Amino acid sequence: MPVTRKTFEDFPPGTIFELGEYHLTAEDIISYAREYDPQPFHLDEEAGRTSFLGGLAASGWHMVSILMRMTYDNILFDTCSLGSPGVDSLKWTRPVLAGDTLTGKAEVLSARPLKSRPNMGIAKFRFEMHNQRDELVLVQMTSLLVERQQPT
Amino acid sequence: MPVTRKTFEDFPPGTIFELGEYHLTAEDIISYAREYDPQPFHLDEEAGRTSFLGGLAASGWHMVSILMRMTYDNILFDTCSLGSPGVDSLKWTRPVLAGDTLTGKAEVLSARPLKSRPNMGIAKFRFEMHNQRDELVLVQMTSLLVERQQPT
Repeated sequence: MPVTRKTFEDFPPGTIFELGEYHLTAEDIISYAREYDPQPFHLDEEAGRTSFLGGLAASGWHMVSILMRMTYDNILFDTCSLGSPGVDSLKWTRPVLAGDTLTGKAEVLSARPLKSRPNMGIAKFRFEMHNQRDELVLVQMTSLLVERQQPT
Repeated sequence: MPVTRKTFEDFPPGTIFELGEYHLTAEDIISYAREYDPQPFHLDEEAGRTSFLGGLAASGWHMVSILMRMTYDNILFDTCSLGSPGVDSLKWTRPVLAGDTLTGKAEVLSARPLKSRPNMGIAKFRFEMHNQRDELVLVQMTSLLVERQQPT
Protein backbone atom coordinates (compact mmCIF):
# COMPACT_ATOMS: atom_id res chain seq x y z
CA MET A 1 0.00 0.00 0.00
CA PRO A 2 1.77 3.15 -1.21
CA VAL A 3 0.28 5.70 1.19
CA THR A 4 -0.88 5.69 4.77
CA ARG A 5 -4.61 5.20 4.99
CA LYS A 6 -6.95 6.09 7.83
CA THR A 7 -7.86 3.25 10.19
CA PHE A 8 -10.29 2.93 13.11
CA GLU A 9 -7.81 4.75 15.36
CA ASP A 10 -8.27 7.90 13.26
CA PHE A 11 -11.94 8.25 14.27
CA PRO A 12 -12.06 9.08 17.99
CA PRO A 13 -15.39 10.50 19.26
CA GLY A 14 -15.65 14.25 18.74
CA THR A 15 -13.64 14.26 15.50
CA ILE A 16 -15.22 16.60 12.95
CA PHE A 17 -14.76 16.38 9.18
CA GLU A 18 -15.76 19.21 6.85
CA LEU A 19 -17.20 17.69 3.66
CA GLY A 20 -16.90 20.66 1.32
CA GLU A 21 -19.50 22.22 -0.99
CA TYR A 22 -21.78 20.87 -3.70
CA HIS A 23 -23.61 23.20 -6.09
CA LEU A 24 -26.83 21.66 -7.34
CA THR A 25 -28.13 22.57 -10.80
CA ALA A 26 -31.58 21.93 -12.30
CA GLU A 27 -29.90 19.46 -14.68
CA ASP A 28 -28.45 17.45 -11.75
CA ILE A 29 -31.86 17.28 -10.07
CA ILE A 30 -33.67 16.20 -13.25
CA SER A 31 -30.99 13.68 -14.23
CA TYR A 32 -31.23 11.81 -10.90
CA ALA A 33 -35.03 12.06 -10.83
CA ARG A 34 -35.48 10.61 -14.34
CA GLU A 35 -33.62 7.49 -13.27
CA TYR A 36 -34.74 6.99 -9.67
CA ASP A 37 -37.53 9.33 -8.50
CA PRO A 38 -39.67 10.69 -11.36
CA GLN A 39 -42.22 12.56 -9.25
CA PRO A 40 -43.30 15.73 -11.11
CA PHE A 41 -41.83 18.16 -8.53
CA HIS A 42 -38.36 16.61 -9.10
CA LEU A 43 -38.62 16.81 -12.92
CA ASP A 44 -40.30 20.08 -13.80
CA GLU A 45 -39.83 23.68 -12.61
CA GLU A 46 -43.54 24.59 -12.89
CA ALA A 47 -44.70 21.38 -11.17
CA GLY A 48 -42.21 22.06 -8.39
CA ARG A 49 -43.31 25.67 -7.95
CA THR A 50 -46.96 24.72 -7.51
CA SER A 51 -46.15 21.78 -5.17
CA PHE A 52 -45.57 21.70 -1.41
CA LEU A 53 -41.82 21.95 -2.16
CA GLY A 54 -42.04 25.44 -3.69
CA GLY A 55 -39.68 24.90 -6.62
CA LEU A 56 -37.79 22.31 -8.67
CA ALA A 57 -36.60 20.24 -5.71
CA ALA A 58 -34.03 17.45 -5.34
CA SER A 59 -35.24 13.99 -4.39
CA GLY A 60 -34.34 13.16 -0.78
CA TRP A 61 -32.53 10.10 -2.14
CA HIS A 62 -30.53 12.34 -4.44
CA MET A 63 -29.52 14.35 -1.37
CA VAL A 64 -28.19 11.26 0.44
CA SER A 65 -26.40 10.21 -2.76
CA ILE A 66 -24.68 13.61 -2.85
CA LEU A 67 -23.81 13.26 0.85
CA MET A 68 -22.24 9.88 0.04
CA ARG A 69 -20.11 11.52 -2.65
CA MET A 70 -19.00 14.29 -0.28
CA THR A 71 -18.17 11.63 2.33
CA TYR A 72 -16.10 9.68 -0.19
CA ASP A 73 -14.23 12.76 -1.39
CA ASN A 74 -13.39 13.97 2.12
CA ILE A 75 -13.20 10.88 4.34
CA LEU A 76 -13.48 7.48 2.65
CA PHE A 77 -11.10 8.00 -0.29
CA ASP A 78 -8.16 7.11 1.99
CA THR A 79 -9.96 5.12 4.72
CA CYS A 80 -9.76 1.34 5.24
CA SER A 81 -13.58 1.15 5.15
CA LEU A 82 -15.43 -2.12 5.52
CA GLY A 83 -18.80 -0.64 4.65
CA SER A 84 -21.83 0.32 6.70
CA PRO A 85 -24.39 -1.92 8.40
CA GLY A 86 -27.03 0.78 8.06
CA VAL A 87 -28.59 4.05 9.09
CA ASP A 88 -30.09 4.78 12.52
CA SER A 89 -32.05 7.82 11.44
CA LEU A 90 -32.37 10.21 8.54
CA LYS A 91 -34.39 13.42 8.43
CA TRP A 92 -35.07 15.75 5.52
CA THR A 93 -35.70 19.07 7.23
CA ARG A 94 -36.14 21.47 4.28
CA PRO A 95 -36.52 21.31 0.50
CA VAL A 96 -33.33 21.61 -1.58
CA LEU A 97 -33.99 23.59 -4.76
CA ALA A 98 -32.16 24.04 -8.06
CA GLY A 99 -29.33 26.53 -7.58
CA ASP A 100 -28.76 25.70 -3.92
CA THR A 101 -25.22 25.13 -2.64
CA LEU A 102 -24.91 22.44 0.01
CA THR A 103 -22.18 22.09 2.60
CA GLY A 104 -21.60 18.90 4.55
CA LYS A 105 -20.20 18.08 7.97
CA ALA A 106 -19.60 14.79 9.78
CA GLU A 107 -18.96 14.25 13.49
CA VAL A 108 -17.88 11.00 15.15
CA LEU A 109 -20.39 10.36 17.98
CA SER A 110 -18.93 7.10 19.28
CA ALA A 111 -16.33 4.50 18.33
CA ARG A 112 -15.67 1.01 19.70
CA PRO A 113 -13.69 -2.07 18.63
CA LEU A 114 -15.82 -5.10 17.72
CA LYS A 115 -15.45 -8.05 20.08
CA SER A 116 -16.73 -10.52 17.50
CA ARG A 117 -14.34 -9.34 14.78
CA PRO A 118 -11.11 -8.05 16.35
CA ASN A 119 -9.76 -6.70 13.04
CA MET A 120 -12.38 -3.94 12.91
CA GLY A 121 -14.16 -1.23 14.84
CA ILE A 122 -17.48 0.57 14.43
CA ALA A 123 -17.78 4.36 14.40
CA LYS A 124 -21.14 6.12 14.61
CA PHE A 125 -21.37 9.41 12.70
CA ARG A 126 -23.75 12.35 12.66
CA PHE A 127 -23.91 13.86 9.18
CA GLU A 128 -25.44 17.27 8.45
CA MET A 129 -26.07 19.20 5.26
CA HIS A 130 -26.83 22.93 5.20
CA ASN A 131 -27.84 25.21 2.35
CA GLN A 132 -26.25 28.57 1.43
CA ARG A 133 -28.46 30.32 4.02
CA ASP A 134 -27.00 28.01 6.69
CA GLU A 135 -30.37 26.26 7.07
CA LEU A 136 -30.22 22.57 7.99
CA VAL A 137 -31.61 20.47 5.12
CA LEU A 138 -30.61 16.94 6.17
CA VAL A 139 -29.37 15.14 9.29
CA GLN A 140 -28.38 11.49 9.34
CA MET A 141 -26.87 9.02 11.83
CA THR A 142 -24.89 6.24 10.16
CA SER A 143 -22.39 3.68 11.40
CA LEU A 144 -19.22 2.76 9.56
CA LEU A 145 -17.02 -0.34 9.96
CA VAL A 146 -13.32 0.47 9.72
CA GLU A 147 -10.20 -1.75 9.86
CA ARG A 148 -8.12 -1.50 13.00
CA GLN A 149 -4.42 -0.77 12.84
CA GLN A 150 -2.40 -3.92 12.29
CA PRO A 151 0.35 -4.66 14.84
CA THR A 152 3.71 -3.84 13.24
CA MET B 1 -57.68 15.59 -12.26
CA PRO B 2 -58.48 12.96 -14.88
CA VAL B 3 -58.06 9.77 -12.84
CA THR B 4 -58.69 8.75 -9.26
CA ARG B 5 -55.53 8.91 -7.19
CA LYS B 6 -54.73 7.14 -3.94
CA THR B 7 -55.20 9.18 -0.77
CA PHE B 8 -54.42 8.57 2.90
CA GLU B 9 -57.54 6.39 3.19
CA ASP B 10 -55.96 3.86 0.78
CA PHE B 11 -53.14 3.03 3.24
CA PRO B 12 -54.70 1.23 6.22
CA PRO B 13 -52.25 -0.69 8.46
CA GLY B 14 -51.52 -4.18 7.13
CA THR B 15 -51.80 -3.18 3.47
CA ILE B 16 -49.07 -4.85 1.41
CA PHE B 17 -47.75 -3.62 -1.92
CA GLU B 18 -45.60 -5.77 -4.20
CA LEU B 19 -42.97 -3.55 -5.83
CA GLY B 20 -41.96 -5.79 -8.76
CA GLU B 21 -38.50 -6.83 -9.92
CA TYR B 22 -35.31 -4.96 -10.81
CA HIS B 23 -32.44 -6.69 -12.62
CA LEU B 24 -29.10 -5.07 -11.78
CA THR B 25 -26.29 -5.09 -14.35
CA ALA B 26 -22.59 -4.31 -13.86
CA GLU B 27 -23.15 -1.20 -15.99
CA ASP B 28 -25.92 0.03 -13.64
CA ILE B 29 -23.68 -0.46 -10.60
CA ILE B 30 -20.69 1.31 -12.16
CA SER B 31 -22.78 4.16 -13.55
CA TYR B 32 -24.23 5.05 -10.13
CA ALA B 33 -20.88 4.54 -8.39
CA ARG B 34 -18.96 6.85 -10.76
CA GLU B 35 -21.30 9.68 -9.88
CA TYR B 36 -22.00 9.14 -6.18
CA ASP B 37 -19.92 6.39 -4.53
CA PRO B 38 -16.61 5.70 -6.33
CA GLN B 39 -15.20 3.17 -3.86
CA PRO B 40 -13.18 0.53 -5.80
CA PHE B 41 -15.51 -2.40 -4.95
CA HIS B 42 -18.42 -0.52 -6.60
CA LEU B 43 -16.41 0.29 -9.76
CA ASP B 44 -14.30 -2.73 -10.63
CA GLU B 45 -15.03 -6.48 -10.79
CA GLU B 46 -11.57 -7.54 -9.57
CA ALA B 47 -11.53 -4.99 -6.71
CA GLY B 48 -14.98 -6.22 -5.70
CA ARG B 49 -13.97 -9.89 -5.76
CA THR B 50 -11.00 -9.34 -3.45
CA SER B 51 -12.98 -7.09 -1.07
CA PHE B 52 -15.25 -7.96 1.87
CA LEU B 53 -18.19 -7.75 -0.55
CA GLY B 54 -17.07 -10.72 -2.68
CA GLY B 55 -17.85 -9.25 -6.11
CA LEU B 56 -18.75 -6.09 -8.02
CA ALA B 57 -21.31 -4.80 -5.51
CA ALA B 58 -23.94 -2.05 -5.64
CA SER B 59 -23.54 0.96 -3.35
CA GLY B 60 -26.05 0.83 -0.50
CA TRP B 61 -27.23 4.26 -1.66
CA HIS B 62 -27.79 2.86 -5.13
CA MET B 63 -29.97 0.17 -3.54
CA VAL B 64 -32.18 2.74 -1.78
CA SER B 65 -32.36 4.75 -5.03
CA ILE B 66 -33.62 1.60 -6.82
CA LEU B 67 -36.11 1.03 -4.00
CA MET B 68 -37.35 4.59 -4.50
CA ARG B 69 -37.90 3.86 -8.20
CA MET B 70 -39.78 0.64 -7.44
CA THR B 71 -41.89 2.57 -4.91
CA TYR B 72 -42.69 5.25 -7.47
CA ASP B 73 -43.59 2.72 -10.18
CA ASN B 74 -45.87 0.68 -7.92
CA ILE B 75 -47.27 3.08 -5.29
CA LEU B 76 -46.46 6.77 -5.69
CA PHE B 77 -47.19 7.22 -9.41
CA ASP B 78 -50.90 7.66 -8.60
CA THR B 79 -50.71 8.71 -4.93
CA CYS B 80 -51.36 12.22 -3.57
CA SER B 81 -47.96 12.18 -1.84
CA LEU B 82 -46.71 15.10 0.21
CA GLY B 83 -43.22 13.69 0.63
CA SER B 84 -41.43 12.02 3.50
CA PRO B 85 -40.10 13.55 6.71
CA GLY B 86 -37.42 10.87 6.93
CA VAL B 87 -36.29 7.34 7.64
CA ASP B 88 -36.51 5.63 11.05
CA SER B 89 -34.08 2.86 10.24
CA LEU B 90 -32.29 1.32 7.27
CA LYS B 91 -30.23 -1.88 7.26
CA TRP B 92 -28.14 -3.38 4.48
CA THR B 93 -28.13 -7.08 5.33
CA ARG B 94 -26.24 -8.62 2.40
CA PRO B 95 -24.17 -7.47 -0.58
CA VAL B 96 -26.01 -6.99 -3.89
CA LEU B 97 -23.83 -8.09 -6.80
CA ALA B 98 -23.89 -7.51 -10.57
CA GLY B 99 -26.46 -9.86 -12.14
CA ASP B 100 -28.71 -10.00 -9.08
CA THR B 101 -32.46 -9.56 -9.48
CA LEU B 102 -34.14 -7.66 -6.66
CA THR B 103 -37.78 -7.84 -5.61
CA GLY B 104 -39.40 -5.25 -3.37
CA LYS B 105 -42.27 -5.27 -0.91
CA ALA B 106 -43.86 -2.56 1.23
CA GLU B 107 -46.17 -2.99 4.21
CA VAL B 108 -48.10 -0.24 5.98
CA LEU B 109 -47.23 -0.54 9.69
CA SER B 110 -49.35 2.34 10.99
CA ALA B 111 -51.37 5.28 9.69
CA ARG B 112 -52.82 8.29 11.46
CA PRO B 113 -54.28 11.67 10.49
CA LEU B 114 -52.17 14.67 11.51
CA LYS B 115 -53.78 16.90 14.11
CA SER B 116 -51.62 19.87 13.20
CA ARG B 117 -52.39 19.64 9.47
CA PRO B 118 -55.89 18.21 8.95
CA ASN B 119 -55.49 17.88 5.17
CA MET B 120 -52.92 15.09 5.52
CA GLY B 121 -52.07 11.84 7.28
CA ILE B 122 -48.83 10.01 7.98
CA ALA B 123 -48.30 6.35 7.07
CA LYS B 124 -45.31 4.38 8.33
CA PHE B 125 -44.00 1.72 5.93
CA ARG B 126 -41.67 -1.25 6.23
CA PHE B 127 -39.83 -1.80 2.94
CA GLU B 128 -37.91 -4.97 2.13
CA MET B 129 -35.75 -6.03 -0.81
CA HIS B 130 -34.80 -9.65 -1.50
CA ASN B 131 -32.44 -11.15 -4.07
CA GLN B 132 -33.20 -14.03 -6.48
CA ARG B 133 -32.33 -16.55 -3.72
CA ASP B 134 -35.00 -14.94 -1.51
CA GLU B 135 -32.30 -13.59 0.82
CA LEU B 136 -33.12 -10.27 2.51
CA VAL B 137 -30.71 -7.57 1.28
CA LEU B 138 -32.31 -4.39 2.65
CA VAL B 139 -34.95 -3.42 5.21
CA GLN B 140 -36.09 0.15 5.78
CA MET B 141 -38.76 1.95 7.84
CA THR B 142 -39.91 5.20 6.26
CA SER B 143 -42.87 7.50 6.82
CA LEU B 144 -44.88 9.08 4.06
CA LEU B 145 -47.21 12.09 4.22
CA VAL B 146 -50.34 11.63 2.09
CA GLU B 147 -53.31 13.93 1.37
CA ARG B 148 -56.58 13.00 3.02
CA GLN B 149 -59.73 12.59 0.96
CA GLN B 150 -61.48 15.90 0.43
CA PRO B 151 -65.14 16.09 1.53
CA THR B 152 -67.32 15.93 -1.59
